[in-house]
Amino acid sequence: LSLIDRPHCEQRDTDDPLRLCRDRFSLPNGIVYLDGNSLGPLPKTAPGAVRQTVEAEWGEGLISSWNDARWVDLPARAGDLLAPLIGAHPGEVVFGDSTSVSLFKLAAALLASSGKRTKIVSETGNFPTDTYILEGLVRLLGDRHDLIRPPMDEVEAAIDDETALVVLTHVNYRSGAMYPMAKITALCRSKGIPLIWDLCHSAGAVPLDLAGDGVEYAIGCGYKYLNGGPGAPAFTYIRASSQAAFDPVLTGWFSHARPFAFEPDYDPHPSIAKALVGTPPVIALAGLIEGLKTFEDVDTGAIRAKSLALSDLFMALVDQELSGHGFEIVTPRGADKRGSQVSLVHDEGYAIMQYLIARGFIGDYREPGLLRFGLTPLFVRFADVWDCIACLRNAMQTGAWDTPKYRARKAVT
Amino acid sequence: LSLIDRPHCEQRDTDDPLRLCRDRFSLPNGIVYLDGNSLGPLPKTAPGAVRQTVEAEWGEGLISSWNDARWVDLPARAGDLLAPLIGAHPGEVVFGDSTSVSLFKLAAALLASSGKRTKIVSETGNFPTDTYILEGLVRLLGDRHDLIRPPMDEVEAAIDDETALVVLTHVNYRSGAMYPMAKITALCRSKGIPLIWDLCHSAGAVPLDLAGDGVEYAIGCGYKYLNGGPGAPAFTYIRASSQAAFDPVLTGWFSHARPFAFEPDYDPHPSIAKALVGTPPVIALAGLIEGLKTFEDVDTGAIRAKSLALSDLFMALVDQELSGHGFEIVTPRGADKRGSQVSLVHDEGYAIMQYLIARGFIGDYREPGLLRFGLTPLFVRFADVWDCIACLRNAMQTGAWDTPKYRARKAVT
Repeated sequence: LSLIDRPHCEQRDTDDPLRLCRDRFSLPNGIVYLDGNSLGPLPKTAPGAVRQTVEAEWGEGLISSWNDARWVDLPARAGDLLAPLIGAHPGEVVFGDSTSVSLFKLAAALLASSGKRTKIVSETGNFPTDTYILEGLVRLLGDRHDLIRPPMDEVEAAIDDETALVVLTHVNYRSGAMYPMAKITALCRSKGIPLIWDLCHSAGAVPLDLAGDGVEYAIGCGYKYLNGGPGAPAFTYIRASSQAAFDPVLTGWFSHARPFAFEPDYDPHPSIAKALVGTPPVIALAGLIEGLKTFEDVDTGAIRAKSLALSDLFMALVDQELSGHGFEIVTPRGADKRGSQVSLVHDEGYAIMQYLIARGFIGDYREPGLLRFGLTPLFVRFADVWDCIACLRNAMQTGAWDTPKYRARKAVT
Repeated sequence: LSLIDRPHCEQRDTDDPLRLCRDRFSLPNGIVYLDGNSLGPLPKTAPGAVRQTVEAEWGEGLISSWNDARWVDLPARAGDLLAPLIGAHPGEVVFGDSTSVSLFKLAAALLASSGKRTKIVSETGNFPTDTYILEGLVRLLGDRHDLIRPPMDEVEAAIDDETALVVLTHVNYRSGAMYPMAKITALCRSKGIPLIWDLCHSAGAVPLDLAGDGVEYAIGCGYKYLNGGPGAPAFTYIRASSQAAFDPVLTGWFSHARPFAFEPDYDPHPSIAKALVGTPPVIALAGLIEGLKTFEDVDTGAIRAKSLALSDLFMALVDQELSGHGFEIVTPRGADKRGSQVSLVHDEGYAIMQYLIARGFIGDYREPGLLRFGLTPLFVRFADVWDCIACLRNAMQTGAWDTPKYRARKAVT
C-alpha cells in the first residue's frame, strides 16, 4: 500500500468535477475552512442580494415591497429552492423561525392529535436543543408523556405501539453517524407513529430522498451546509399528502388562509404556509436564498461522492500520519453510516483545536475531547485535507499546541 | 377660530425640536410616508451595519464572529438599547423570534403554571395574530381554557378571580385607541393574574413606563415604530423581579444556562436570556440595532408631544377640509386614549387609499373601510400632514379616486 502524499491530493483536486464551485464563495485568504457544518461561508452573491433588499426594497419600496418585491413569497420561494436538494416536491417546504421553534411547531401539533399514546422516542446523543424543546413541550402538556432517549443503536427497538412521536436527528452533530432514514421511516409508518427528522446536519451534505423514503415531517438548519448566513431561518417540510391532516398549534397570522383579511378567528392555510407563524424575516431570507443558490446545477450524487472521498482521505491520513498521538476516529467508517464530517477524540482536544485555528485550519471543538472537521464538497479541497493533517502532525510532534494560550477557554467554541 | 393653512404648518416644522431627526432616515424623494406604524423606514446607518455583518463578520470572521464580533450578545444588546424607550431596566428585554412566537412563549409558560383557573381574557378587536396564537395554545392544552374576547370597554369587567391570563394590545392596530396601562396592570396584579402587554403599536410611539406601571410581561414588534427592517425580530420583556419565577416552555438551546456546553438536560438561563429560543438571527439583529439607534438622544416626552401635535393637526384638518365627504374619525380624540396614528373610516376607503398612495402619500388600508395614517414623530413633518389632507380633499372634490385602477385589489395591502 503506497503512502498518500500532497501531489496525490493536488491531482484529485485537478480531477474534481466540483472544483469550480469553490468560486461561488468569498473565502478569506490563508484559511482552510472546515466548519461549514457549523456556519457555511459567505456566497459571493449574498452581499449584493442583501443590499438590494435593504437599500432598494426596504429603503425605496418601503411597505409596497410586500407586493412589489414579493416579500410575501420568500418563505415558500426559499423552500422550493431547497426541495430538489432533499428529494422533496415544490410546495412541501417553507423557511421561517429557528430550528428550535420549527421543531416545536411540528412536535406540538403532532402530539396534540396523538390520542392516548404517551411515549416520545428521541436519542440520548441528539442535538441538545431538540431534547430541550421536547422536555419543555412535555412539561407544557402536563407531564403526561414519557420522553425516552436510548442510544442510537437501541432506538429502533424502543419504537413500539405505545409511541406517540419519534424525533431523530438524521446525522449526529458530534460523531457524524447517520441513521438509515428509509428503514426507520417505514418502521414508524407501519405503526402509525409520526416521525420528525431533524436534517440540520444532512441538508446540503448528504443526498436525501424524502419523497422516496416516505418521510412526512422534517426540519433543518439554514446556516450550516446550506450557507444561509448566521442565524438564518430554518426550514419545515411536510409531505404534500400529510398537509391536509396537519393541524398547526403555533398559529400565527402568516399561517392563516387569509392573513391580510385580519379575520377574528383562525383558519389554517391549505398549503405548506400553514407551517409559518409570524411575519417572515425578509432580510435574512434574502441572504439565505443566495446560500441555496450555491447548489444550483450541482448534482447531489456528485456532492455525496466528493464528501465521502474527502472524509475517506481524512481518515486515511489520520491513520497514516497521526498514529501514536492519541487520536481516535469516532465517525463510522461505513459510507452508509456517516454524514459529511469527521470527528476525532483526543484528551487534549480543546487546546489542539485552538492551535489548528490559530494556524488557519478552522474546525471546532465539542466537550468532551471532540475535534470536528466539516468536509463540505462545494469548497473544501483534497489538498486542504492534506494541509490540515500535516499541521496536526507537526503540532503533535513538536508539542507546539501545548501552551497556556491554546488552553485558555473562550465563551463560544 | 382661524383656519389652519400651509404656512402655519411650515412654521411648526421650523419650530419642531425633533426636526433634525428626519435626517437619520433614507426617505425616497417625492413621497410622504405615513406607514411607519406598519414598516418603519430605512435608517441611514442600517445598510453599512448590515454590510459589515455580512461581508466582514460573516465573510471574513466566519464562525469566530460568535466570539470576536459578539454575535452571542446581540439579542440582549438590542434589548438594552430598547429598554429606556419603554421604561424598562437593562437586562429586562431581549430580541429574537417573531411577535407571534414571542407571545406564544410567554402565554404558554404562564398558562402552564396557572393552576386551576381556566379563563383567558383578550379583546375582540385585538390584532388577529394574538388571538390566533391564543386559540392554538388553548387547543394544544386540550381545550380546557375559555378564551374570552370582550370589546375594549368591557375588558376590565371581564377580569375576575377565574382569570388565568390576560393578553391585551396596548394601542389598537385599527383605531389607534390606547388602554390605561397602569390601571389594568394594577387590577391584574391585585388578583394575581399574569398580564401580557402587546406593545407592537406602542414601543417607539408612545411613552411607556413598564417599571413604574408594574408591568411584568410584554412583547412587541421590531419593524414598526422601531424601524428595525422588514420582518425584524420582536422583543420580549420580563420584569427583573419576575424572571426567577418564569419557567420557559419553548426551551431552545439559547435559553439554556450553558448553551455551548451541549448538556443533555435543560436548565434555564438565570437571566432574561431564558426568553430566547433558537440561534439568534444575526443579520436581522444588525439591522434592527440601527433602527433602535434612531431614537438615540431623543426624549420620549418630545416624541409624545410631537405625536399628539401631528395627530391633533391631522384631525383638525379632517374637520376643516373634508367635512361632507363621508369620512369619520375613529381614533379617540382624548390625548390619553390614543397612540400615534389616526384612522378614518370611509365606505370607499380602499380606492381612496390607493389614490393617495399613487400620489405619494403612503398610508394603508384595513377592511372594512379603514384608512390608517401613522404619524411618526422622528420623520413626519407638519407640512406633510397638510399636503396629505390637501391631496385627499382634491380627490374627493374631483372624484379622481374613483377609477377601476384604484379599485383593483392587491394581494397585500
